[in-house]
Amino acid sequence: MKVAEVLHMNGGMGETSYANNSLLQQHVISLTKSIREEAIMSLYRSKHPRSLAIADLGCASGPNTLLVVSEFIKVVEKLCRNLNHESPEYKVFLNDLPGNDFNNIFRSLDNFKERLRGEIESEIGPCYFSGVPGSFYSRIFPNQSLHFVHSSYGLQWLSKVPENVNNNKGNIYMASTSPSNVLTAYYNQFQKDFSLFLKCRAEELVEGGRMILTFLGRKSDNMFSKECCYIWELMAMALNDMVFQGIIKEEQLDSFNLPHYTPSPSEVKLEVMKEGSFAIHQLNVSEVSWNSLECESQMSESHVDGAYNVTQLMRAVAEPLLVSHFGENIIEELFNRYKKILTDRMSKEKTKFVNVTILLTRKP
Amino acid sequence: MKVAEVLHMNGGMGETSYANNSLLQQHVISLTKSIREEAIMSLYRSKHPRSLAIADLGCASGPNTLLVVSEFIKVVEKLCRNLNHESPEYKVFLNDLPGNDFNNIFRSLDNFKERLRGEIESEIGPCYFSGVPGSFYSRIFPNQSLHFVHSSYGLQWLSKVPENVNNNKGNIYMASTSPSNVLTAYYNQFQKDFSLFLKCRAEELVEGGRMILTFLGRKSDNMFSKECCYIWELMAMALNDMVFQGIIKEEQLDSFNLPHYTPSPSEVKLEVMKEGSFAIHQLNVSEVSWNSLECESQMSESHVDGAYNVTQLMRAVAEPLLVSHFGENIIEELFNRYKKILTDRMSKEKTKFVNVTILLTRKP
Repeated sequence: MKVAEVLHMNGGMGETSYANNSLLQQHVISLTKSIREEAIMSLYRSKHPRSLAIADLGCASGPNTLLVVSEFIKVVEKLCRNLNHESPEYKVFLNDLPGNDFNNIFRSLDNFKERLRGEIESEIGPCYFSGVPGSFYSRIFPNQSLHFVHSSYGLQWLSKVPENVNNNKGNIYMASTSPSNVLTAYYNQFQKDFSLFLKCRAEELVEGGRMILTFLGRKSDNMFSKECCYIWELMAMALNDMVFQGIIKEEQLDSFNLPHYTPSPSEVKLEVMKEGSFAIHQLNVSEVSWNSLECESQMSESHVDGAYNVTQLMRAVAEPLLVSHFGENIIEELFNRYKKILTDRMSKEKTKFVNVTILLTRKP
Repeated sequence: MKVAEVLHMNGGMGETSYANNSLLQQHVISLTKSIREEAIMSLYRSKHPRSLAIADLGCASGPNTLLVVSEFIKVVEKLCRNLNHESPEYKVFLNDLPGNDFNNIFRSLDNFKERLRGEIESEIGPCYFSGVPGSFYSRIFPNQSLHFVHSSYGLQWLSKVPENVNNNKGNIYMASTSPSNVLTAYYNQFQKDFSLFLKCRAEELVEGGRMILTFLGRKSDNMFSKECCYIWELMAMALNDMVFQGIIKEEQLDSFNLPHYTPSPSEVKLEVMKEGSFAIHQLNVSEVSWNSLECESQMSESHVDGAYNVTQLMRAVAEPLLVSHFGENIIEELFNRYKKILTDRMSKEKTKFVNVTILLTRKP
């Protein structure tokens, strides 16, 4: 499986699209708002740049794509008014893998800019948007061309499925039954990938540039901790049932492993320190319920069912990967079964995702 | 009609896609190869930039999209080897209106880069690609950020349908039966648009930066000359037949006019001189047969019919505009009729498109 060709969120605006099933990711982005605001303000105050370049890595396509950009511009514009500065020019780079639905983003940009101007209620600096397709595990921007890098819920995706995980039978990710070589292979791949990510961004960011990264991660030191692996174990359960009933071949399941790693805060910190180009300002852990709508007051009929939300969320994220390995035919059946399993488990346990957020500054 | 929202070439890779029906445009690009090569070489020699930024405006989506970029990189790399220079870094900006199929381009980039490396047979400088959605009748790039701008067969599209052309009855573009106010309105819109285009690019190009523009145009001073208007007059003929048979309402046809202008060399020159930021190095006129495959030696069965090619070409270009005004239902019928009319005319006359190409340098 060539991850860079296969991995992308479900495109379009339909029922199973990422655009329509990414409230959880939106909630996660909102949790780090204050960290971003502080980072943007201190960046602006330290450099007073006439031109500000911001990149969102793994921007996907939907209502979340421009959330951070809009917030960024608002914070800078407010600061400029307070300091009596002229607005800078904004260069906004939206990055994701080539399979991402960039068309959908591009067609929403005019409305976005109009809304932004309405919200800010004063003349803002010129904004230049571009889409940058490519893996963030490689150089995607020119040397020292960025001031601010943001990425939320992208970096838990690895550049590839680790090698030597063939004996991870019956599992699709790390699990309590995974052999130790599988755990090692996953951790090694994470180290290699994240360290390469840091090296590339270190070259692309200006001195003093800020970077805020949020991983889907874990608190525990245990790599196959339930807090990060359970959501996939339940999907493996549905797949195993389908193997048992002859719908999927056993070899097919055994040869499928996710290009994914959910690191702990200390694992993230360790790679940053080893790479050496960045100073760590903050390292936080937060939690969100699997069902991001749990606390929403106005629920529409179709959203009442928490398991439905989680199924849709996981489908929007994992469908292209699953289709590339198992084909399209099993998808409906798989997610029907997954939903049943989720309904049962979510009625019995409190289920949460863990987020690891780190704020970094490019050292001189 | 909001042209920036509606106008785009047919997306995807299907039978009616631009990607599969743009051989004529490819042929036109190939005609200006030597002008581009000279321009690139003199640009490189005069500036020796470590980083080269090139933009293709109205890049569409298909085999032509990266043609000029690939040629550009090859010329610079060859020059660097001859001069014993290190390769520069390339920043490639692909621009079109937001309705363009950028997804299709982005998914072809990895193969493109691989092929390019194979063809050049030596290490090339790093290439950073991005997609820039937006109308080139506005600022789309930061100040002085480009070295080289290319646009082929994009600038005959106006930013909007001219105002006060309501009395252009039975026509969809300028025609011999168009009232004089219609001709004036079209020319005024061209002047306004092209002059704005020049002003924006003058701000975006570095001093000494080069720009090569190819318009679908005309040689004659007569605005409704057959050489530029006939192709649309024949489409209007098909539409008028459909009005006669009650398939389209007369008011619908009367309210449809193309956002299009096919200038003469002197009209292009006049605007450049009026705007004042650019020096004119070359101004050429060339011709291509409507049926771009006329001279190709190997024709597949489906390409034998010249009228079929021209119909497909015009459909790939005009379908989204037509659909937005007339709806989808008339499209098959319209192009069947158009093909019959084209078959008849092309068997009786030599039919050609006229191209106006201009090479400009940003003055200091």
